[in-house]
Amino acid sequence: MDFDFDSTTEEHRQRLQSFMAEHVYPAEPVLAEQTRDKANPWQVPPVITELRAEARKRGLWNFFLPGELGAGLTNLQYAPLAEITGRSPQLAPAAINCAAPDTGNMEVLAEFGNEQQKQQWLRPLLDGEIRSAFAMTEPEVASSDATNIATRIQRDGDDYVINGRKWFITGAMNPNCRVLIVMGKTDPDAPPHRQQSMILVPRETPGVHIRRGMNVFGFDDGDHGGHAEIVFDNARVPAENLIDEEGSGFAIAQARLGPGRIHHCMRLIGMAERAIELMCERAVSRVAFGKPLAEQGVIREWIAESRVRVEQLRLLVLKTAWLMDKVGNRGAHTEIQAIKIATPASVEWIIDKAIQTHGAAGVSQDFLLAGLWASARMLRLADGPDEVHKRSMARRELKRYQS
Amino acid sequence: MDFDFDSTTEEHRQRLQSFMAEHVYPAEPVLAEQTRDKANPWQVPPVITELRAEARKRGLWNFFLPGELGAGLTNLQYAPLAEITGRSPQLAPAAINCAAPDTGNMEVLAEFGNEQQKQQWLRPLLDGEIRSAFAMTEPEVASSDATNIATRIQRDGDDYVINGRKWFITGAMNPNCRVLIVMGKTDPDAPPHRQQSMILVPRETPGVHIRRGMNVFGFDDGDHGGHAEIVFDNARVPAENLIDEEGSGFAIAQARLGPGRIHHCMRLIGMAERAIELMCERAVSRVAFGKPLAEQGVIREWIAESRVRVEQLRLLVLKTAWLMDKVGNRGAHTEIQAIKIATPASVEWIIDKAIQTHGAAGVSQDFLLAGLWASARMLRLADGPDEVHKRSMARRELKRYQS
Amino acid sequence: MDFDFDSTTEEHRQRLQSFMAEHVYPAEPVLAEQTRDKANPWQVPPVITELRAEARKRGLWNFFLPGELGAGLTNLQYAPLAEITGRSPQLAPAAINCAAPDTGNMEVLAEFGNEQQKQQWLRPLLDGEIRSAFAMTEPEVASSDATNIATRIQRDGDDYVINGRKWFITGAMNPNCRVLIVMGKTDPDAPPHRQQSMILVPRETPGVHIRRGMNVFGFDDGDHGGHAEIVFDNARVPAENLIDEEGSGFAIAQARLGPGRIHHCMRLIGMAERAIELMCERAVSRVAFGKPLAEQGVIREWIAESRVRVEQLRLLVLKTAWLMDKVGNRGAHTEIQAIKIATPASVEWIIDKAIQTHGAAGVSQDFLLAGLWASARMLRLADGPDEVHKRSMARRELKRYQS
Amino acid sequence: MDFDFDSTTEEHRQRLQSFMAEHVYPAEPVLAEQTRDKANPWQVPPVITELRAEARKRGLWNFFLPGELGAGLTNLQYAPLAEITGRSPQLAPAAINCAAPDTGNMEVLAEFGNEQQKQQWLRPLLDGEIRSAFAMTEPEVASSDATNIATRIQRDGDDYVINGRKWFITGAMNPNCRVLIVMGKTDPDAPPHRQQSMILVPRETPGVHIRRGMNVFGFDDGDHGGHAEIVFDNARVPAENLIDEEGSGFAIAQARLGPGRIHHCMRLIGMAERAIELMCERAVSRVAFGKPLAEQGVIREWIAESRVRVEQLRLLVLKTAWLMDKVGNRGAHTEIQAIKIATPASVEWIIDKAIQTHGAAGVSQDFLLAGLWASARMLRLADGPDEVHKRSMARRELKRYQS
Repeated sequence: MDFDFDSTTEEHRQRLQSFMAEHVYPAEPVLAEQTRDKANPWQVPPVITELRAEARKRGLWNFFLPGELGAGLTNLQYAPLAEITGRSPQLAPAAINCAAPDTGNMEVLAEFGNEQQKQQWLRPLLDGEIRSAFAMTEPEVASSDATNIATRIQRDGDDYVINGRKWFITGAMNPNCRVLIVMGKTDPDAPPHRQQSMILVPRETPGVHIRRGMNVFGFDDGDHGGHAEIVFDNARVPAENLIDEEGSGFAIAQARLGPGRIHHCMRLIGMAERAIELMCERAVSRVAFGKPLAEQGVIREWIAESRVRVEQLRLLVLKTAWLMDKVGNRGAHTEIQAIKIATPASVEWIIDKAIQTHGAAGVSQDFLLAGLWASARMLRLADGPDEVHKRSMARRELKRYQS
Repeated sequence: MDFDFDSTTEEHRQRLQSFMAEHVYPAEPVLAEQTRDKANPWQVPPVITELRAEARKRGLWNFFLPGELGAGLTNLQYAPLAEITGRSPQLAPAAINCAAPDTGNMEVLAEFGNEQQKQQWLRPLLDGEIRSAFAMTEPEVASSDATNIATRIQRDGDDYVINGRKWFITGAMNPNCRVLIVMGKTDPDAPPHRQQSMILVPRETPGVHIRRGMNVFGFDDGDHGGHAEIVFDNARVPAENLIDEEGSGFAIAQARLGPGRIHHCMRLIGMAERAIELMCERAVSRVAFGKPLAEQGVIREWIAESRVRVEQLRLLVLKTAWLMDKVGNRGAHTEIQAIKIATPASVEWIIDKAIQTHGAAGVSQDFLLAGLWASARMLRLADGPDEVHKRSMARRELKRYQS
Repeated sequence: MDFDFDSTTEEHRQRLQSFMAEHVYPAEPVLAEQTRDKANPWQVPPVITELRAEARKRGLWNFFLPGELGAGLTNLQYAPLAEITGRSPQLAPAAINCAAPDTGNMEVLAEFGNEQQKQQWLRPLLDGEIRSAFAMTEPEVASSDATNIATRIQRDGDDYVINGRKWFITGAMNPNCRVLIVMGKTDPDAPPHRQQSMILVPRETPGVHIRRGMNVFGFDDGDHGGHAEIVFDNARVPAENLIDEEGSGFAIAQARLGPGRIHHCMRLIGMAERAIELMCERAVSRVAFGKPLAEQGVIREWIAESRVRVEQLRLLVLKTAWLMDKVGNRGAHTEIQAIKIATPASVEWIIDKAIQTHGAAGVSQDFLLAGLWASARMLRLADGPDEVHKRSMARRELKRYQS
Repeated sequence: MDFDFDSTTEEHRQRLQSFMAEHVYPAEPVLAEQTRDKANPWQVPPVITELRAEARKRGLWNFFLPGELGAGLTNLQYAPLAEITGRSPQLAPAAINCAAPDTGNMEVLAEFGNEQQKQQWLRPLLDGEIRSAFAMTEPEVASSDATNIATRIQRDGDDYVINGRKWFITGAMNPNCRVLIVMGKTDPDAPPHRQQSMILVPRETPGVHIRRGMNVFGFDDGDHGGHAEIVFDNARVPAENLIDEEGSGFAIAQARLGPGRIHHCMRLIGMAERAIELMCERAVSRVAFGKPLAEQGVIREWIAESRVRVEQLRLLVLKTAWLMDKVGNRGAHTEIQAIKIATPASVEWIIDKAIQTHGAAGVSQDFLLAGLWASARMLRLADGPDEVHKRSMARRELKRYQS
């Protein structure tokens, strides 16, 4: 259980921090400017394209992906890098091609895709030439229980035909998004965990209707392609677009979730650090009732409590990363659940306090905080609500007491 | 301390509930439709105009204003009516001409305005012909301490000349908004609570520059005219636009705040009730892991806790209303602070749980919840952050122990 | 919903407050002195006997009991009096013969007892000549579900024979305790709510074995007769000791619980007020890091939050009392549950903050606070744990959404 | 930052766990039996003496003390051992001679004592022949600010004469307690942190009056010698009893506190684990409303949340231990504060939930839980209340934002 940064990690950290300082933080007000116009919310802000070019030039790229296809880092090596990108979550993850949902999709293709699929979709994703989306959540069912998924994927000759309704499909309206990985049922009569399959659906396929962008507390997240509601109405794709084999969808989804959850948590740590920074800066500079906020006992309490919480969260995330490296994602299941339970809720609390320290400014577009908050809040729901994880975790804890 | 509804209140409640059922709730999806287009966010959605016409026709109008100019209700009589409007806060308060900031402005004009001011501004506000805004909060100073206000109002011959920067000026971008009540300093050398004055500034006055709308989380609240940042650059108005007299601004602000705070709290109760309703409806209709959410112990815990909290809040608000009627706003100062401390935070908690019960749907535009939440969260800051009220309240509690 | 104190209440309040000031508060250190000796923990401290004599002389007696047998007060009239006694909970309720479990037992006898039972047990209880206990909770079963009660009460000729084990039987070791009301099963084959009966068992009955006193966070509460574990081993009493009729035990228990719960909550309000008083006194008198604790922001936050909570609790309790008077205990079932959920938890929070303000002194025997805390904590369990009440309350709330 | 157990640690853990299983857990009911008699609460229960003999025989001894005098373990090596002893905190720490306040006193003597002092006091403490106490806290002043300490230590010829009042002096009534380390002022005119000194005072010194045992909630902790109030009335000891030099008392106190705090936190982790174990055992075995508590969603939520919290706490404690080993106690000051803030409060929460799961049994003497809770609650005050640590920690966090 050694969490020290090795020399590779340390070197990446320093290069990434330079990139943040020289390019990413200065780009934040530019992004705000470029996204002000709501008439065309789904266009990619030029500043993101520029950052991606710069990052790639610097070799800050694909850190998330282990093995030869990616940067070859372990989870433990990637964790502090992902944390840094979380400090500017609208820009930094996308800049270094480490943004969801592409990351998860690339992992799926790298692990379960065949050569043809890798050539056609993984390669351009790794090169940052295209973006992608992952279509799992459905409005009609509690999608935290993946066996509820109702979208049908039916074999018809050499094709599969897809029918169903999905929503909160992040990134789907990004003009560069070219492909969706769709989860659906190929065999409703199979055992519950063998009914689902995943399939690659080019976004421009006839029958794929992108209906609208879903909001998250008023935010449309248009700079990243939003969160789409999509109707699949007899969308037809060649049978070779199926990933792995029929019935493996549930297993692929499980495999995809582990890294996805820890990446979110790593970035949340960075978001919390940024919020603490903003809170402290505000506290020392803002005067009310004759003294800086920093001298108010209640605000000091928030700062200390925030620091104590974030230290705990980081260690738990590092331990989980270390364990995933050691025993694999499945072996670290409990730990992954633990960070998924602990991190979004604690970070939400920290950001809330940073907002309160800022007064009305804190809820506005002039500070990152409202956006950070909405992201943290959303992650108490995304990839399964807290309650589902707690229920499952308790069941495992209780198991050894049940004879 | 008798909180029973008298026959007047009961009759108004029934008529208002009919109006809600017949017109307001059905208008909610219409409003969503009419505000979907972001190209012109500040236009007044036609459905609001229609509701106002219908409400006025039914005599559901100006309930907030005591005395002959308004509906003549006491605070205790108004409280359950305001609660009902809180159930649909984007539509109902505006529909019956009981929406902030007009209500506070009308109170100011009714109490402190001269005949000419009443004729010119109060009359059309009472008749719903125009809307208005209240320009107090400034970005550069902690405005919860009103003595910090830095905007200058300087006498120049027969005019006053205004310079300064305001923000979060609710409703200022509503095309019907015709006048701003501006708080600023007429005499920076006077004693701290006699430096400020309030003055009426027609919105179209040269030198009044509406710069942009501030967001609350991702919401622009465009349907009500948003929350403007306004620069006053040598804006010049006739001296007779001054309200009351020079130096009375702080006192007027205090007088305005009491009713404003309780109206917010009354509506928050209604918002909480609506959230509980949505939470229960979702819980009985949504199935996860083989049974309705309503059978999950954690969700039951939320529902019970929500019910217990809202019952307490309502009684505290009713008591405060009763006390204001009996001893005046100043005499009820402690109670007004108590409801301002208790209500937004508790209601925010309730709405958060209703959101969690809805999954991703809860944060989206498909349910009222995200908007309700943002309103409740904002009210932990608006009219003074919780911490300022707690500090002041504790000081009063401690006073009798200090010899 | 009129909560004002009428003239009867106001007069009783003033007389009770005088009694508190002149006799009860001065008796607190005397009680501490008299209970210091642990060799004989169950003896009645003389100061309690003296207070009872004085109270009775002053006509401060049996306020809890409505109707001709008691003081004839309504619940709403009794509430503020019970609150006052809660300020010194070891002394005041017992002093005026309004202490549990005697109060509940007297209610049961007044409502369900026959003339003979009233003569033999109710009369001396009303006169304060004897004390009593109520034997319901059992160690082996979750007694919050009364149908679990396993103690057997079997008819044998002209007698009933009792076998079973009870614990946390408050007051049973008080030397003046002469009779136990025992809940048990007379007919295990009847429908679930008709299996139980209640029966009067003189404490000195052969086969009644008082085994030990149960502790509550280290406290033995010996001054009131502790909380006994009792084994009934073929304890035999005449058949006429049965209260009401066979099978009515569950119904009597329900009838007994309503008033019992509200009395606890009324007193908890007084306990909270006492804790706030102690917290404020400490805050103004204790200096740390160069200034009184009263100037620390965090402690001000606690004081304000405590005040806001207790105001809400009191109103909810008063409303419940008023409702019980108006529609009866059964009609006020939801409200009684609400106060049972809200009051102990909130008051526990308040007392915890008062303790923290006191430092180590707060947990010691030198202040009332540790004892107050243990009482409040116990009441999150006694008469049913919070979770059982929340579950039941949510079920009722959800019912109208279930078609 | 490598937290893995090395082979030394692992071997000690296994031997310690065997000792716990074979001797300590079986001794818990024996201890309860031996301490039942309150007539002589300060006698040492024979079972403790027996356990100490057995532990010493097994070489499970003085693990806390680094260097040649002790077991020579690092903080990181000791942490998991201390955690194990926390599972039975009344017995295990004392059994292996790792119980406060002896541990801190031995550290002080080992680091600051001269040869004579080591010979006379440290040797028999290390050998477990005597016990000791540490007399710092005073009733009259906020002792979390050590400069407040008012007890006087005055030079008089070859002696020092001590006058003052102390309380909560843990262990002082243990018949084996032979010496007190007393903190007091030798020079009230020196700079604030040079006024204090520490001095060794044999307990039987004339003028040392042990007045009474202070309670913690209702517990007297008599099995360990309680928490004494002690009056020093011209208690006279030879000048050579002074530790280190005049004026070094504050520095010694600081040096003593770091290890003391982390030892408490290590044991608190073990207490939390024991509470979770008890909670789970109860949950699977207790049936209410037709199913085991383990199937109630709310209880599952508690279990999962407890697990998530304890994992975070343990990592933070391990990191702090590792850092103390690496950079010394002073360099780990922030981390020590962080664990002192986080651990007692979180563990108190966990134990509270375990209690609630047990119903009335949870607050009683039949389970460890009430005692565990009181210990955790006390540690939110002992060695400085949470609020003092938070205030100090925030100041340090804010410092780098203040130009």
